[in-house]
Amino acid sequence: MKNNIPYKIYLNENEIPTKWYNVRSDMKNKPAPLLNPATLEPMGFEDLRPVFCDDLVKQELDDTTPYFDIPDEILDFYKMYRPSPLIRAYFLEKALDTPAKIYYKFEGNNTSGSHKLNSAIAQAYYAKKQGLKGVTTETGAGQWGTALSMACSYFDLDCKVYMVKCSYEQKPFRREVMRTYGASVTPSPSDTTNVGKAMLEKFPDTTGSLGCAISEAVEVAVSTEGYRYVLGSVLSQVLLHQSVIGLESKTALDKYGEKPDIIIGCAGGGSNLGGLVAPFMGEKLRGEADYQIIAVEPASCPSLTRGKYAYDFCDTGMVCPLAKMYTLGSGFIPSANHAGGLRYHGMSSVLSQLYDDGLMEARSVEQTSVFEAAQKFARVEGILPAPESSHAIKVAIDEALKCKETGEEKTILFGLTGTGYFDMYAYQAYNDGTMSDYIPTDEDLQKGFDGLPKVDK
Amino acid sequence: MKNNIPYKIYLNENEIPTKWYNVRSDMKNKPAPLLNPATLEPMGFEDLRPVFCDDLVKQELDDTTPYFDIPDEILDFYKMYRPSPLIRAYFLEKALDTPAKIYYKFEGNNTSGSHKLNSAIAQAYYAKKQGLKGVTTETGAGQWGTALSMACSYFDLDCKVYMVKCSYEQKPFRREVMRTYGASVTPSPSDTTNVGKAMLEKFPDTTGSLGCAISEAVEVAVSTEGYRYVLGSVLSQVLLHQSVIGLESKTALDKYGEKPDIIIGCAGGGSNLGGLVAPFMGEKLRGEADYQIIAVEPASCPSLTRGKYAYDFCDTGMVCPLAKMYTLGSGFIPSANHAGGLRYHGMSSVLSQLYDDGLMEARSVEQTSVFEAAQKFARVEGILPAPESSHAIKVAIDEALKCKETGEEKTILFGLTGTGYFDMYAYQAYNDGTMSDYIPTDEDLQKGFDGLPKVDK
Repeated sequence: MKNNIPYKIYLNENEIPTKWYNVRSDMKNKPAPLLNPATLEPMGFEDLRPVFCDDLVKQELDDTTPYFDIPDEILDFYKMYRPSPLIRAYFLEKALDTPAKIYYKFEGNNTSGSHKLNSAIAQAYYAKKQGLKGVTTETGAGQWGTALSMACSYFDLDCKVYMVKCSYEQKPFRREVMRTYGASVTPSPSDTTNVGKAMLEKFPDTTGSLGCAISEAVEVAVSTEGYRYVLGSVLSQVLLHQSVIGLESKTALDKYGEKPDIIIGCAGGGSNLGGLVAPFMGEKLRGEADYQIIAVEPASCPSLTRGKYAYDFCDTGMVCPLAKMYTLGSGFIPSANHAGGLRYHGMSSVLSQLYDDGLMEARSVEQTSVFEAAQKFARVEGILPAPESSHAIKVAIDEALKCKETGEEKTILFGLTGTGYFDMYAYQAYNDGTMSDYIPTDEDLQKGFDGLPKVDK
Repeated sequence: MKNNIPYKIYLNENEIPTKWYNVRSDMKNKPAPLLNPATLEPMGFEDLRPVFCDDLVKQELDDTTPYFDIPDEILDFYKMYRPSPLIRAYFLEKALDTPAKIYYKFEGNNTSGSHKLNSAIAQAYYAKKQGLKGVTTETGAGQWGTALSMACSYFDLDCKVYMVKCSYEQKPFRREVMRTYGASVTPSPSDTTNVGKAMLEKFPDTTGSLGCAISEAVEVAVSTEGYRYVLGSVLSQVLLHQSVIGLESKTALDKYGEKPDIIIGCAGGGSNLGGLVAPFMGEKLRGEADYQIIAVEPASCPSLTRGKYAYDFCDTGMVCPLAKMYTLGSGFIPSANHAGGLRYHGMSSVLSQLYDDGLMEARSVEQTSVFEAAQKFARVEGILPAPESSHAIKVAIDEALKCKETGEEKTILFGLTGTGYFDMYAYQAYNDGTMSDYIPTDEDLQKGFDGLPKVDK
């Protein structure tokens, strides 16, 4: 402990937030509504409830209510793994020899290994409350599927996970965690859905895609009595649930009189970044404070830094609603990248609007430099970070080194979303020096943009 | 939080113990000394220092000093991952509907994934202090190797790990964590040592053994300028370092006026159990309090429950000192068991003596029942436990269910040594129903006993 600020700041359990903060309530320019892919009309409660739970649809559509009470059942579950620590990176500061003060909010200290559990438990709760039998979802790398399995196990809900076939076969460990929590895990495409059967007939040897897995999960949800579909990112309801990250961070910093100058988060669909920055962005929107907010994305999948702000499909199967967002086009296929959670073609509508309004910045970073930062961080801070989280580490280190040059004592806060225990093939590629850094050309991107739907809004 | 006892008790950083407790100082019957395998004479400082660091040899031989100051450099490193939480298992208590109060000390919240880091950092520190260039060790499942890699990285020491070849090939993930921390990991047997070369010549297709890996690591340590060998369990110095687990647990319980009736730990070589019970055993030895202390071991490797108390080799290669311990014989090969850390033929001399003196009990449990307990625990407490740790969970649940029958409100403390993220093949076997429960016959055991050295002490 130096200057009375401990290495790890743990709030007391009675300091866990009891309300989620809805950043949309303070936005002047609201995020654009979801559109029905058939009619191109904004979707309302009745349009969305066949797919999502009723309470979650209400949260999705509500852009004015500033706070939502967190139900007691969810607060109980939080005790299992929250409050999460806010860590002062003394070891990293020393290694960098920087005058900057670096803090990170660590969301990886739970068995799902990431922040995804914050929204999984909320979505499972509302499904249970509605009297449903179960939920369906898709998973790629498996963090979301694992989190949802844990949440469903807690509420005794059935959990059907469609896992992209190549991940199912090549990454059996997360699959087994999900099974240990009682989920049924089906490799996608499968013969349990029409979408899957058609895909298998057309491409018998396919190893699957996230787009197809989404379509299968949605098909099962809407065609099975007592089931709904749930999603781990992109949606505004998810950012609402994830605001617990930012609220806890702010409470912990306030306790020690600290105020961040820079807030940094990795961004795939936006669930982590949106949650981390929520209360700070609220202050910024209300003119009460200013913060430099930086979204970090992979150079191989640069939706904010090189994408277009337009209506697009949320899934590659084009069955889901259209969302207005920074996107590379639902047909864009990013090159192989080990940060599976950041390989999404679009970005949360909320964050897209905030970015478009100049309220936050974005940077893209190359994979090898991300793993260089990850290794450095692991060695000095003792936590092996997820590849996704390491994008934020990379930019936090960059900013701290700038402070070293200028002598500025800035306070940096970043989100450490999870651990990399299930990503060791990625670390192996880095250790072996076989990691690639392919960046899409303008031509690559144009192909994705060519597939954008024609929407005049 | 119920009755003002939170779910997770985190000590403040200034409450981390500053001294290790040496339980031998309070033992009337001291553990028997290590013997030179050639002369069968007790080994002294000069005998042991070619293999181990000087300060560690002193700790190994000292059975009278009650407390050792923890050096500042180690206390600094502790801030990375200590204090570890003492968790009140409210969720488990509710699921079992038991009047028992259950606590567990969770040592898995660090990247090495187990309590092994507590001794790794101490051993690395003394190696650095002595001006050594590096250390060598062996690893099977990889928890010790991972912990040592992290510790060596922190002190900028070279770390050479000999990893049993079949683990090296079949469990690449821990290998990559070690490499990420800068360790060199060599599959054993290798052509880098005489022992390894001889083994490869004799058995070109061997997949290796822990015994051979130990022999290689020792050979490199004693034949390379500036290197020493380090070991993660069994030795009395390791139990000394691990006393930090018990000391923190006791401080946390004392804070809330709680006193355990039963203390439970899994036991392989004894590092975790010896550390967890240390201060409680001290009170028991001094007649200040009484505790029921239970060591839990796999039925497939029952050194305490079915072994002999005799001098034996610590390694299967028979190059290390002889230790008096409960043992199945260094030639005993336990059946395939997923708790790699509990597959050791012997038991710490300290714990063996305490057990022989009736100061603690031992129970053996079958693998499938252990995973049943592990799965239950994972689902209600939200932590996926290591197979080793789950042995303690199994007996804690058994004891809590006994309380349910009798109505007794006993307080149970157990050690949750680590997480099972790198053990998913084991969980898969359980999920698939293909796990075996082979228990050695008396004939199997007799073969091990037949190989015990003839020592008249």
